[in-house]
Amino acid sequence: MIIHPGELTQKERYKLFIGTILPRPIAWVSSMSVDGFLNAAPFSFFTVVATAPMTLVFCPQIPATGRVKDTLRNVEATGQFVINVTNEETAQVMNLTATTLAPNDSEFEWAGLTPAPSKTIAVPRIAETPVSYECVLRQVVPVGDGSPGSGAAVFGEVQCIHIREDLYDEGGYVKLDALKPIGRLAGAGYTRVTDLFFMERVPPPEGQ
Amino acid sequence: MIIHPGELTQKERYKLFIGTILPRPIAWVSSMSVDGFLNAAPFSFFTVVATAPMTLVFCPQIPATGRVKDTLRNVEATGQFVINVTNEETAQVMNLTATTLAPNDSEFEWAGLTPAPSKTIAVPRIAETPVSYECVLRQVVPVGDGSPGSGAAVFGEVQCIHIREDLYDEGGYVKLDALKPIGRLAGAGYTRVTDLFFMERVPPPEGQ
Repeated sequence: MIIHPGELTQKERYKLFIGTILPRPIAWVSSMSVDGFLNAAPFSFFTVVATAPMTLVFCPQIPATGRVKDTLRNVEATGQFVINVTNEETAQVMNLTATTLAPNDSEFEWAGLTPAPSKTIAVPRIAETPVSYECVLRQVVPVGDGSPGSGAAVFGEVQCIHIREDLYDEGGYVKLDALKPIGRLAGAGYTRVTDLFFMERVPPPEGQ
Repeated sequence: MIIHPGELTQKERYKLFIGTILPRPIAWVSSMSVDGFLNAAPFSFFTVVATAPMTLVFCPQIPATGRVKDTLRNVEATGQFVINVTNEETAQVMNLTATTLAPNDSEFEWAGLTPAPSKTIAVPRIAETPVSYECVLRQVVPVGDGSPGSGAAVFGEVQCIHIREDLYDEGGYVKLDALKPIGRLAGAGYTRVTDLFFMERVPPPEGQ
């Protein structure tokens, strides 16, 4: 079946993406307005860009209301944010922060989260999370004309990492069983990371 | 436990990212050199950027060898690529294409894949996959100085979508049970998407 993007509504394009590009890791981003109001929100359009320097990217969308998300406005204004890692234990409170509040109402208060001071930036991390990456903004790459469905790729360079001691092993190895990560699917769906399989990389043919 | 990126080796930084930012969807990218050699390779640093226009991003790394990956070289030379979606059924052959071959040796032949003609671009899609996105290159954002661990964010705008008929439902809805997606973890690890839970978004407090 062949579909051209122009044949789809904005909603259909979105559903097709979130239904085929999955499971997605979640950036639970804490940010702060220039007036000091704290914000937290989950973004599942999120991935790694590089390890030298350690760089992450998340991609907030322009929603149907056309209003730029608080997170993006804060990050552009202050140049700082924290990407917190959510998991099975923090899934419920993370979901509370997906609710759209008024700009000066804090998701920290609404969800009962504890802001913990960061080491290298003014924006606090979420104390309840197992891993946090303190980031400084390096670049925002806008995509689209700013109307609903447009997006932006927000590049952050990691300045400092907080990780729960029991998760971390020598050599950078992270214990999956202790982390209990979750992945984002379409609609209201999430997956636990429990039904595992393993495939080693196959060596190249002889003579290479 | 607090870690500064400068305290970690390149390998430790990589392991920390792939062990905490997961599960990751996989872009199984087909590309073609200017001489017509076909390439296929999986990238799990991959996400959605926008739906208007439909835009995806994947982030190839500069490996320890320092040699730019064939996929990135091809994409920069031709401006075209296909992002194919892998799943449980195609996982084994996808893994074969993670093997580094000589630039003019085709992963299509090595893994026994069928190139199927695209509608809008010259680069073929992988016929065995359930979903393919034909893309034109919009932008490459390099991160780092080009040494190992540096990366690049490769932005592609979707021109045409191929989707297996039994997966697609009215309104853009995709049937998860039929798609059988897989997610990338650390090391040799992958997850099936079977251990699900659901959380509806909570409405804002009264008065908003």
